[in-house]
Amino acid sequence: MARRMGSVRLKRANPITVAVGALLCIFIVLFLFYPSGSSHATTSQRAGAAVHPLSPPTAPYRRIPGLSESRPPPVIRYNMNNITATADPEGNRENILLLTPMARFYPEYWANLLRLTYPHELITLGFILPKTKEGNEATAALQKQIAKTQRHGPARDRFRSIVILRQDDEPALASQDEGERHKLANQKARRAVMARARNALLFTTLGPDASWVLWLDADIVETPPSLIQDLAGHDRAVLAPNCFQRYYDEETRRAEERPYDFNNWQDSEVAQKLAGAMGRDDILLEGYREMPTYRALMAYMAQEGKDEKFEVPLDGVGGTALLVKADVHRDGAMFPPFAFYNLIETEGFAKMAKRLGWQPYGLPNYKVYHYNE
Amino acid sequence: MARRMGSVRLKRANPITVAVGALLCIFIVLFLFYPSGSSHATTSQRAGAAVHPLSPPTAPYRRIPGLSESRPPPVIRYNMNNITATADPEGNRENILLLTPMARFYPEYWANLLRLTYPHELITLGFILPKTKEGNEATAALQKQIAKTQRHGPARDRFRSIVILRQDDEPALASQDEGERHKLANQKARRAVMARARNALLFTTLGPDASWVLWLDADIVETPPSLIQDLAGHDRAVLAPNCFQRYYDEETRRAEERPYDFNNWQDSEVAQKLAGAMGRDDILLEGYREMPTYRALMAYMAQEGKDEKFEVPLDGVGGTALLVKADVHRDGAMFPPFAFYNLIETEGFAKMAKRLGWQPYGLPNYKVYHYNE
Repeated sequence: MARRMGSVRLKRANPITVAVGALLCIFIVLFLFYPSGSSHATTSQRAGAAVHPLSPPTAPYRRIPGLSESRPPPVIRYNMNNITATADPEGNRENILLLTPMARFYPEYWANLLRLTYPHELITLGFILPKTKEGNEATAALQKQIAKTQRHGPARDRFRSIVILRQDDEPALASQDEGERHKLANQKARRAVMARARNALLFTTLGPDASWVLWLDADIVETPPSLIQDLAGHDRAVLAPNCFQRYYDEETRRAEERPYDFNNWQDSEVAQKLAGAMGRDDILLEGYREMPTYRALMAYMAQEGKDEKFEVPLDGVGGTALLVKADVHRDGAMFPPFAFYNLIETEGFAKMAKRLGWQPYGLPNYKVYHYNE
Repeated sequence: MARRMGSVRLKRANPITVAVGALLCIFIVLFLFYPSGSSHATTSQRAGAAVHPLSPPTAPYRRIPGLSESRPPPVIRYNMNNITATADPEGNRENILLLTPMARFYPEYWANLLRLTYPHELITLGFILPKTKEGNEATAALQKQIAKTQRHGPARDRFRSIVILRQDDEPALASQDEGERHKLANQKARRAVMARARNALLFTTLGPDASWVLWLDADIVETPPSLIQDLAGHDRAVLAPNCFQRYYDEETRRAEERPYDFNNWQDSEVAQKLAGAMGRDDILLEGYREMPTYRALMAYMAQEGKDEKFEVPLDGVGGTALLVKADVHRDGAMFPPFAFYNLIETEGFAKMAKRLGWQPYGLPNYKVYHYNE
């Protein structure tokens, strides 16, 4: 029942090394659309203003000798009064920041992104990849697809902009083949690394204009094309669909599906007592036989053919697919890489969101699908 | 000994209201320098690329009918491999994000900013102001000074770019004139609002190219002009100068100075025991007679004429002036608006940085000065 391997693979644990080295090596690829005039400029001084509003503030300013005193800088005002996060994001032209930590590139992931019916010109993609051999390969494959879509694909496929971060000095865990107990011990380090990657991606890419942040793992290969509209339609601060996995059942000889993400749960008295008896730095993990929590897992709440809009409140969430109002993050909700109320990463995030007054919800009957390795 | 009133003034407490309303109303003023060609474009396809690299990705993309199929979008790559945070930030052309929550505009604050000798073209300023009458006045005064500096001032004064956020539905506290006990109770709500403001400012403005974040309160009216170089020279992840206040002593009839920020401290056994006996949602505040902590306060460690470079490790930090390596924030360190190890806001931030493996330090003999009301 263990939650299957996440999207960042590791071989040795050393969080401090990540901390120091993380993001020292960053590069950003920004694929811009064709330019349009800056229609937001409100001053009469339009001469010299940026041609395209999407060019990022990432390059160092270069002084031009002799020019400095002669020409005052252009002034551009961006009126952001109408940033909303509503049940009708498309109607209100709300921007989505779609964030994906990636260790492997799956063509099916990209194909699924392209099928999303939410206007692509309102979607900014952000990726973070480890600086490992596998990460380099994934980056190359990702960039190839990006070039294909952004430069040669039809206009409706092209995303607003794309940012790629590389995480330096990725620590690695001992082999996942060792005993159960060791596996459980490894989880804390693995989840901490994952949390730091999510935070680096979030803190670096969240700007003033995003209404929603959609977390989507790199191994999510199938979602309803209307995923963003469907989830945003619930108008919840934090909302998780149910993550399943398709497989071929050798016995029944039929295509079947099984629950995959066990981090979406409702708390139990047993789990609270377990946590109460733990040290402050210990974490309570879901999906391990040696530590039964008796939490109510959303993975097991799905009912065939029942209402896809049915909601349940959640106390822990997973990160395979998760829609978050950008203001929840702006309030300070991040992914704790340390034990936070004995929870870590996305589960700790759910607790933090609750501490900030935002209640997470889940959709047991609304499914997205994980890659089957 | 109470820490004096911070830079956000309030009249009624309701964190949820802030949470919901915060940042729904944002506007950004970006004062750009004169345009220069995008020298970072690495592809041969330069036609149509943004004229100026600093224009922000904040305006919605607008589709131009008929143009979509005929012209592929330009591709611009920003190579960010050399983002460092070193003891020689000027030599390494490191970008500083200078963040200030502001409720009142002090001309002395702005004059002090202008005196900073760190190259202004490497400094981005970020402000967040409440949407109150006072906040509106401060915004107007701030914008006036910005226009003066950025458009009409000498080139060396001009900052790289400036972002202003407005925080909607600012909650307010009951009058500060009520009894001590009430004052103490108010602190938690006041600090929580301040923490949310800092988080909103941080999450919204931190981009991929910042090396350092300098937190500087709006009522800091005097610092050494070499503040940034001096602090960065210590190469610490989190570093706080000592915040004092100048005043005229009626008795001695001389200009004197007194310690001001009491949130820079080293923990004590008494404080740890106090916290241990508290509920998880309670916070332990510094500077209240009814709750003596016996922490070692950096405010009282200053020694006349002694080494300005002398460092002490800290367990709690204040926000009046604080230099933080951007990677500490990217790791997830934010300002908890809730009790975090019985600490809140900047003091909670110090604890969070420590949990992430970053040790805060302070400089008892290196002083900055707070406005005297």
